[in-house]
Amino acid sequence: MLKTIQLTDAETSKLHEDYLHLHQSPELSMQEHNTAAFIEASLSEIGIEHFRCGSTGVVATLRNGEGPVVAFRADSDGLPIQEATNVDYASTARGTLADGTDVPVMHGCGHDTHVASALAAARILVRNTDAWHGTVIFIFQPGEETSAGAAAMVADGLWDKVPHPQVVLGQHVFPFASGNICVTPESAMAMADSLEVTLYGKQAHGSQPQDSIDPIVLGANIITRLQTITSRELSPLDSAVVTCGSFHAGLKENIIPDTAVFTLNIRTLTESVRAQVLSAVSRIINAEAAASNAPEPRITELYTFPRLFNDPQHTEALVSVFGEEFGAENIRLVPPAMGSEDFGALGDAINVPSVFWMFGGASPEDPAPAVNHSPFFLPEYRGALNTGVRAAVAGMLHYLGR
Amino acid sequence: MLKTIQLTDAETSKLHEDYLHLHQSPELSMQEHNTAAFIEASLSEIGIEHFRCGSTGVVATLRNGEGPVVAFRADSDGLPIQEATNVDYASTARGTLADGTDVPVMHGCGHDTHVASALAAARILVRNTDAWHGTVIFIFQPGEETSAGAAAMVADGLWDKVPHPQVVLGQHVFPFASGNICVTPESAMAMADSLEVTLYGKQAHGSQPQDSIDPIVLGANIITRLQTITSRELSPLDSAVVTCGSFHAGLKENIIPDTAVFTLNIRTLTESVRAQVLSAVSRIINAEAAASNAPEPRITELYTFPRLFNDPQHTEALVSVFGEEFGAENIRLVPPAMGSEDFGALGDAINVPSVFWMFGGASPEDPAPAVNHSPFFLPEYRGALNTGVRAAVAGMLHYLGR
Amino acid sequence: MLKTIQLTDAETSKLHEDYLHLHQSPELSMQEHNTAAFIEASLSEIGIEHFRCGSTGVVATLRNGEGPVVAFRADSDGLPIQEATNVDYASTARGTLADGTDVPVMHGCGHDTHVASALAAARILVRNTDAWHGTVIFIFQPGEETSAGAAAMVADGLWDKVPHPQVVLGQHVFPFASGNICVTPESAMAMADSLEVTLYGKQAHGSQPQDSIDPIVLGANIITRLQTITSRELSPLDSAVVTCGSFHAGLKENIIPDTAVFTLNIRTLTESVRAQVLSAVSRIINAEAAASNAPEPRITELYTFPRLFNDPQHTEALVSVFGEEFGAENIRLVPPAMGSEDFGALGDAINVPSVFWMFGGASPEDPAPAVNHSPFFLPEYRGALNTGVRAAVAGMLHYLGR
Amino acid sequence: MLKTIQLTDAETSKLHEDYLHLHQSPELSMQEHNTAAFIEASLSEIGIEHFRCGSTGVVATLRNGEGPVVAFRADSDGLPIQEATNVDYASTARGTLADGTDVPVMHGCGHDTHVASALAAARILVRNTDAWHGTVIFIFQPGEETSAGAAAMVADGLWDKVPHPQVVLGQHVFPFASGNICVTPESAMAMADSLEVTLYGKQAHGSQPQDSIDPIVLGANIITRLQTITSRELSPLDSAVVTCGSFHAGLKENIIPDTAVFTLNIRTLTESVRAQVLSAVSRIINAEAAASNAPEPRITELYTFPRLFNDPQHTEALVSVFGEEFGAENIRLVPPAMGSEDFGALGDAINVPSVFWMFGGASPEDPAPAVNHSPFFLPEYRGALNTGVRAAVAGMLHYLGR
Repeated sequence: MLKTIQLTDAETSKLHEDYLHLHQSPELSMQEHNTAAFIEASLSEIGIEHFRCGSTGVVATLRNGEGPVVAFRADSDGLPIQEATNVDYASTARGTLADGTDVPVMHGCGHDTHVASALAAARILVRNTDAWHGTVIFIFQPGEETSAGAAAMVADGLWDKVPHPQVVLGQHVFPFASGNICVTPESAMAMADSLEVTLYGKQAHGSQPQDSIDPIVLGANIITRLQTITSRELSPLDSAVVTCGSFHAGLKENIIPDTAVFTLNIRTLTESVRAQVLSAVSRIINAEAAASNAPEPRITELYTFPRLFNDPQHTEALVSVFGEEFGAENIRLVPPAMGSEDFGALGDAINVPSVFWMFGGASPEDPAPAVNHSPFFLPEYRGALNTGVRAAVAGMLHYLGR
Repeated sequence: MLKTIQLTDAETSKLHEDYLHLHQSPELSMQEHNTAAFIEASLSEIGIEHFRCGSTGVVATLRNGEGPVVAFRADSDGLPIQEATNVDYASTARGTLADGTDVPVMHGCGHDTHVASALAAARILVRNTDAWHGTVIFIFQPGEETSAGAAAMVADGLWDKVPHPQVVLGQHVFPFASGNICVTPESAMAMADSLEVTLYGKQAHGSQPQDSIDPIVLGANIITRLQTITSRELSPLDSAVVTCGSFHAGLKENIIPDTAVFTLNIRTLTESVRAQVLSAVSRIINAEAAASNAPEPRITELYTFPRLFNDPQHTEALVSVFGEEFGAENIRLVPPAMGSEDFGALGDAINVPSVFWMFGGASPEDPAPAVNHSPFFLPEYRGALNTGVRAAVAGMLHYLGR
Repeated sequence: MLKTIQLTDAETSKLHEDYLHLHQSPELSMQEHNTAAFIEASLSEIGIEHFRCGSTGVVATLRNGEGPVVAFRADSDGLPIQEATNVDYASTARGTLADGTDVPVMHGCGHDTHVASALAAARILVRNTDAWHGTVIFIFQPGEETSAGAAAMVADGLWDKVPHPQVVLGQHVFPFASGNICVTPESAMAMADSLEVTLYGKQAHGSQPQDSIDPIVLGANIITRLQTITSRELSPLDSAVVTCGSFHAGLKENIIPDTAVFTLNIRTLTESVRAQVLSAVSRIINAEAAASNAPEPRITELYTFPRLFNDPQHTEALVSVFGEEFGAENIRLVPPAMGSEDFGALGDAINVPSVFWMFGGASPEDPAPAVNHSPFFLPEYRGALNTGVRAAVAGMLHYLGR
Repeated sequence: MLKTIQLTDAETSKLHEDYLHLHQSPELSMQEHNTAAFIEASLSEIGIEHFRCGSTGVVATLRNGEGPVVAFRADSDGLPIQEATNVDYASTARGTLADGTDVPVMHGCGHDTHVASALAAARILVRNTDAWHGTVIFIFQPGEETSAGAAAMVADGLWDKVPHPQVVLGQHVFPFASGNICVTPESAMAMADSLEVTLYGKQAHGSQPQDSIDPIVLGANIITRLQTITSRELSPLDSAVVTCGSFHAGLKENIIPDTAVFTLNIRTLTESVRAQVLSAVSRIINAEAAASNAPEPRITELYTFPRLFNDPQHTEALVSVFGEEFGAENIRLVPPAMGSEDFGALGDAINVPSVFWMFGGASPEDPAPAVNHSPFFLPEYRGALNTGVRAAVAGMLHYLGR
């Protein structure tokens, strides 16, 4: 039955038009002002009540009588990447980083397909109110790339302003063939914790190490020692990454500097492993500083990506739903990925289960589509949007359908 | 007898005037244009023939009949430091670094005392031609701080244009009490080799170390391993330093970068230890890259400071000479220093022995004078210059005196 | 239907008697002479043809007309552990290690339950020839603990002497509640590769490191560097362990020794990860030796445990079979374990699929039963054997049942 | 004048005879029972009063009227080495180590020349009482090789039983040409501190590092980190060695052990550097254990060799004395050696200055004589003894001669 709710030609045209507009208008995280205005205008045009939440987030509540409540999230931000596809609708937009740098902006992670698909799904639901009942909360979330958006919406009272749903749904485009859905039961993506560590040494001339506390040698020992967390402190069956993404110290070859600064990115799949790794990181950094007779380093959290936990029962149900919609052979259960996503923070804030799936956005003929965050990333948008809209509607109607 | 050649009051006044002018007119290494012009004008005024050599170097030849030939070197460059003494003659000069940065400039290593003393010594010699015979080659050398100047003068044909001396003399002011001389027989200061090393890894997302070759972890292992050169490969009785003064890699905490760049400063006292350390540094860097399955790193020499070897017999003779001039109790033999100086390159270029001594420039009452390269460095100039001139004249007359 | 084939009281008595005898007669790996004789006598008594294979291995072929061929393996060796249970049937046996050491011996890994269960299963099959048809190959394998036995039987022509089966089945007792079965689809246990590494340095007096190549410092750098294999070279979603279990170098505190010897134990779940890790281990050891200017180390393989790969389709089928036998709620799919088992080598030698499951041997009331290889390990043997026999018969009849 | 006191032919014959006897009768440290008896018998025969001190030490007091008091030390122990020279007087002696092991014993460090020379010097002094006045304390010290002997004699009241000397003299044979003397002013040999360190981890199966605290990985990090003491914490002009001479952990490749034991040998030339290094060693070991979350390691002192400080003024005077005796061209000032010697403990116990020199024992024609502690070590004894006796007499008469 669900398969019968298809986009009309007009809805498809509008969907493509929306996507092309969004693709050419990407904005940086938490600066999605025009995008938010576009979403608001679209919702008004569709006839759904909405409000701003979390600065550039938009929440729409589509009520259709008594019935279940379901939330559906679409994230809306772009990335500071110069689009290198040569399609005529490639982005030429620019934005300004927090430090004032002017940068190119691109929908390099396909969030334009998320917003456009969510708006099209809303149109379908509004046109087919007889096919379902209940309430849909559309959450147009800003700032996913920086993990700021979901937290901002929750902090701005999201869940005080709308009825609590029984499930929060979300989806993301990836460069596998359109018409396919992948989903990971339970821990689906990694929690990410980013830290900045400042080591305090003591400056001295390069010829007089005895007068220094060498923060570069200290840092080298820390980096080396951190490798033992995954190799010795965790079960080989657990998954975790401790990456040092940057290390900066010193200006001149013959001066031992007095500080070194490095950043860590820590990814884990479970809270217990996360706690264990974070504790080990602190322990090692502090102990190595002690080994160098150096002052206690400063460890600052840059940001945290929350867990993304797909409720197993809801996931199993939706796998079945998607199997009906797309054919069971086109649905795959995949192992967790170590990437991160702040979607999980929405449902976790009110202890409501979540399901997050991946939909294919590449042409089935494309043997090697560019990956997300690449300057060449480019969904084949007709297939991608069709898949995204159908998955969204099917997923919601699983809960709401009459 | 040597003690009888004293500065006249007029010479002393001129000496102080020259110093104060020079102190307020410091120029960066190899940019000593005004300083060179000042030296040239002074030499012309004194009546000594001279020529430019090595861009901002000046060479003067003072001939006084048949006799020995002695070279005496004074270096002339300042440092990119903001003078923080509050004397009324403190420098407010500025200069431009190679990268275009505008910086304050200060005679933070006392080369102004070297130039002023050399000019005063020249005046004394010219006034007392009956006391000596032979030829003095005054070498006003630019660019000591960057090790560029001595090499530039040799490359510009210094030794093709003047008679070869039997010894090359040089001196440097340090913040011990004026009226004192320190000297180190044989290896007196360290050779310094500065290297820049670029490590080539392979970029990947921080969550996917398996797709990377992590240049930060590679660098950490190299830094750690380099410590074994001094601890395990050299005799504990040899002296060497391998300092990593800077390490820079990565822009973002969640991207494993594809390169890392670090600099090394290597100091040794003998050619054999130097060769051993340089060889071990290369061996370790390349082997660690191999351990990481990384491409061969690029190792670039930034600069080399040559050896400073005080000929033992000439040094012993001058110690005796200085003992007569300043009192034996004011002459000390001191162990080598790990700092560097390019003076040795002058004599070594023609296999002529060198002697380089340190003269005291601090007030005997000052319990804790600021050290060279400090923004507070400030010789008590009357005593410093008196010591420098007397040492210079005494040293030269040892060879030339009748 | 399968559930109807139950042990008779007499068979149960014989089963218990066999177990108690075996439990008190453990023998070390590849020295299972009495155990083999006991198995042979039992088989003769049951009436199944058999032959020796791989020294202390015994192969029995039970033919029952045309039909499928299934192999079932039971391993038979004990461990050099002093049994510390205080049951009256505790082992007091002793054995002799390869180096001549006299040691206590214990069935500390429960192989006595394996042999006894297999013999009981054979009795059931012989008593119920009308319920099935085809051929069962019983493989009583020695030397599982040292990974020597399966290889020895294959090398001794096992598969030349019996018909090739369509599947090789095996089982192992573990201290979870009897009446339960656990199984891991696909990679079930780790491949293990054990290496002995000899580092060659150069001896010198402790006061003269410059005359040495220090194999302890080299070893420390290797051990440290090996940690990066799991932390940086593998996907966090892959499982691998690189353990250094021993490191021995030097006799005296003031002599730098000329060699160091360490052992590695490497565990992986897939052939590609195994190849990657082994390659990285060699690469790192050799590169670090090069960094130390040391001769090439000697890397010797001590032994290899093969993969244990449970064919997914056969496993799924058997899960269903066991669910019928024990109740679906008593069958669990469990993640892989990093321990090792040489069972997989039997099927892999002829490219025949394998399934290996774990059966519960602990009393359901025991909250914390001792684990395998503990001196306190003690299955509650009545429940353990009942579970083991039923699982064996059910597994075999899945293929052979009429 | 000193040169006039030569050995008579009879004294020379006796000297050679004594040496050959001692060479064939070496005893292990603190077991020099026969050697002590031989010394006592010789002293009695010469007619000098003596007493036992420190078990196998012998002290003789030769009084010759009023005058200065000088102590002269000769050490007497052999080494557990199988002599491999093929002279007909090679040692075939054996001894028993503390652990009961029977070992060959050899005068592999030439202490036989020390004892024989001291006895011959005593004979000369007794024969020439008119040439000198005062008192000589001959200290025949056991146990130099283990640093036990000097401490044992001091603990046994050495300085309570004899007049305190104004200087303590000592000498050692080395394989440079006989007739030559080498001496090092000030710090002449290294202090040595030997430590045994036990690391406490937590045992686990090699496949389960998460259950372990890995003491081998901890130890590797400690060894690596200890390298930074000499490379970063000390002045490059200071001399120190931190050698790990042994590291032992683990029995089996697949068990992570619960402890690791290693030994360190630390050599320094000054008390301040010694204190700095010992402090850094403890700091690093404890901090690295903390980094591993391991219990505090146990650090045990195995033994300490004291400083050997040659009083500069006494040394300068003796250099002059030896120059007269052997020719100034045969006396060399040499840099410190990192080897150790417990001679310094004698004078330091009563704050009396010491001088310790090295005398040549090799044939001037031998281009590559074997070094001390080699199984091939063999002084050319006629020249060696002649040099040792003359140096001893000349040194003592410098203080005592009329």
